[in-house]
Amino acid sequence: MTLPDRAAIEAMDAQDPLRHLRDAFILSPDEVYLDGNSLGVPTRAAQEELLRAARDEWGGELIRSWNSAGWFDLPIELGDRIGGLIGAAPGQVVVADTTSVNIYKALHAAMGLRPGRKTVVAESGSFPTDLYIAEGVVSTLPGARLQLEGVDGATIEDMLDADVAAVLVNHVNYKTGELRDMAALTARIHAAGAVAVWDLCHSAGALPVELDAAGADFAVGCTYKYLNGGPGSPAFVYAAHRHQGQARQPLSGWWGHARPFAFETGYEGDPGIRRFQCGTQPILSMRALKGALSIWDGVDMAVLRAKSLALTGLFIRLVEARCAGLGLELESPRDDAQRGSQVAFRHDHAWPVMQALIARGVIGDFRAPSTLRFGFAPLYLRHVDVLRAAETLEEVLKGESWTDPRFAARAAVT
Amino acid sequence: MTLPDRAAIEAMDAQDPLRHLRDAFILSPDEVYLDGNSLGVPTRAAQEELLRAARDEWGGELIRSWNSAGWFDLPIELGDRIGGLIGAAPGQVVVADTTSVNIYKALHAAMGLRPGRKTVVAESGSFPTDLYIAEGVVSTLPGARLQLEGVDGATIEDMLDADVAAVLVNHVNYKTGELRDMAALTARIHAAGAVAVWDLCHSAGALPVELDAAGADFAVGCTYKYLNGGPGSPAFVYAAHRHQGQARQPLSGWWGHARPFAFETGYEGDPGIRRFQCGTQPILSMRALKGALSIWDGVDMAVLRAKSLALTGLFIRLVEARCAGLGLELESPRDDAQRGSQVAFRHDHAWPVMQALIARGVIGDFRAPSTLRFGFAPLYLRHVDVLRAAETLEEVLKGESWTDPRFAARAAVT
Repeated sequence: MTLPDRAAIEAMDAQDPLRHLRDAFILSPDEVYLDGNSLGVPTRAAQEELLRAARDEWGGELIRSWNSAGWFDLPIELGDRIGGLIGAAPGQVVVADTTSVNIYKALHAAMGLRPGRKTVVAESGSFPTDLYIAEGVVSTLPGARLQLEGVDGATIEDMLDADVAAVLVNHVNYKTGELRDMAALTARIHAAGAVAVWDLCHSAGALPVELDAAGADFAVGCTYKYLNGGPGSPAFVYAAHRHQGQARQPLSGWWGHARPFAFETGYEGDPGIRRFQCGTQPILSMRALKGALSIWDGVDMAVLRAKSLALTGLFIRLVEARCAGLGLELESPRDDAQRGSQVAFRHDHAWPVMQALIARGVIGDFRAPSTLRFGFAPLYLRHVDVLRAAETLEEVLKGESWTDPRFAARAAVT
Repeated sequence: MTLPDRAAIEAMDAQDPLRHLRDAFILSPDEVYLDGNSLGVPTRAAQEELLRAARDEWGGELIRSWNSAGWFDLPIELGDRIGGLIGAAPGQVVVADTTSVNIYKALHAAMGLRPGRKTVVAESGSFPTDLYIAEGVVSTLPGARLQLEGVDGATIEDMLDADVAAVLVNHVNYKTGELRDMAALTARIHAAGAVAVWDLCHSAGALPVELDAAGADFAVGCTYKYLNGGPGSPAFVYAAHRHQGQARQPLSGWWGHARPFAFETGYEGDPGIRRFQCGTQPILSMRALKGALSIWDGVDMAVLRAKSLALTGLFIRLVEARCAGLGLELESPRDDAQRGSQVAFRHDHAWPVMQALIARGVIGDFRAPSTLRFGFAPLYLRHVDVLRAAETLEEVLKGESWTDPRFAARAAVT
């Protein structure tokens, strides 16, 4: 396949069925932002919703806004909106708390459904908080233990013995972008008698997710990456309808009570998804998310996926052609079917190389020890952005400007 | 003591050393807002900080703001600011998650310090989420049980036997405003070998709190009442320095790790207060809180307390004089030393009476089954507001306008 030239790449943008969505975002004209898989870009709608909530509601109706502005029902309202993007019928997703807290809830609920079993399986290559929280859950369950896939080459499938109660698994790996086959792995987990808890942080809003169709049991995900909810916007948790009657989670705060305003002394969990709520939610952050989610109306997830693969595929081809022999090694799957919406390259000097890219307006990120990570948010990126990123990477690697001493030290947050 | 007239009350405002602070708040000129103990009033500073975070930081530096705008350190920065208002030396308070989630952390940590003991004591008259979370904690600890003070007339002191590991107790009761003597009760709890977890939701920002001096072990509180952080702004948790080495809590997310950016596979909790963090925090809500906290610089908590007692004391006297024989019964302590910053009256028709008050611009709230609750936030309320509230209550009760059928039904959120 010949490499497309600039004209061909511009033509791709002209034919992009999602190109109108770029206008919904507040983007710097001088930058190519390839970190939407860490913190998504603000939409005008998010900023407007935030202002409305802060100025007109908090600053206007004050306490009455809990009813009049629908604050109390936001977790359910936004949960159902996200449900529409991840293949979950209404009443199975709630927006609340953080991804970490929601993993705690979901994993506890999963373990509770398999009381005779004591093992949690998770991936050693997971974003660490998944593992840390799994440790926390295990610490509260006598006899329970955490086993990590990938440590000695064993796969999740190899580990599915009769003691496994729950498997906590990432749909898309945060570092390499490797995409799991959710339906196939869920079926294997179920065949072994265990419960599947999916982490959707790097797939929700990036590609089609079909939780109901895959038979997933529980899922969690964040809203500040491809869903563009804003820094630290509240996370979501999914519990399949069939589990909602039995599933228990110990963060049994008043927002999860069957009758939160009856002020009863004893806890009785809501029979539905509200049971996965705990306490009062950060409404201002939640309202920015509400605005961000409004732009998804009418977006066809198959079209989104096609564009995402076009962007990441083009980036791989352009970089490998332009930067051959410059020390890069593709860490992401080359096969479209196995790749999320991001591309990772290994390089011995990944940290200073990324700093040099950022100084030139191409914003990706670094993951220790030696990964250059580039996220491609299909709602707002163009094919010409991919071209500029590849050209800039070539320029940096050929010019060796990344040896500049100001790029040598690592900042605290990468 | 003769009742002050309007001129005397206006003179109180003229002499109020905190009167200049009212200008920091965005208040409706037509209303008297006595619900700051449920949702505080926005400050101009909070709105400005929120805009700066949303527009200039999220919308400008994007992901880089985690470092450049100090987002990652906000929980510690704001924790220390709140620490200054609740008698906690730096390094013992962190702002994160919700009050409910923080009760879960603190109570788990407390129970872990007394492994041979199995009982948690809490108050039956507590805001219910405290009890629900205590149930959740107990459900994860084999053999543990929750016992409620106040059910059969037993006091906390009566219940302090050798099996009590932790006592979860409110500094100020959410309904009646009754204030506990923190130092005395903590000493009793310690004498019995147990650990004290204080809920400061209705005292932080309302009156002087001296956690360190009282020898408190753990504490939690919310920031959207007297601290004016905005709807659902993140809560705080305190762990005394002496416990930080040993205290464990199972919500062991990456923000509580000793080296969160090393991306290690195993969890090692931070040796300090950061261990009480879990996941990524809602930065927009957090930044509104930062603005709200900025107005506390130079506020003398003793002066604040004197004004608070002047307001609540005046309200009790005016109401009892004007509304004698109209079915009201004081539910709050008459003794200043035992009263927080709120006043509760019982009335057979409390719900419609409150709705009629609200319709006349006096915003208090209702607590089931028959309580009229009025919060007096000393930073922004005036003595003339107290007069208007008392006059309006008299007018409502004498006019019986509260029998209007539109006030008969209860809304979902009260």
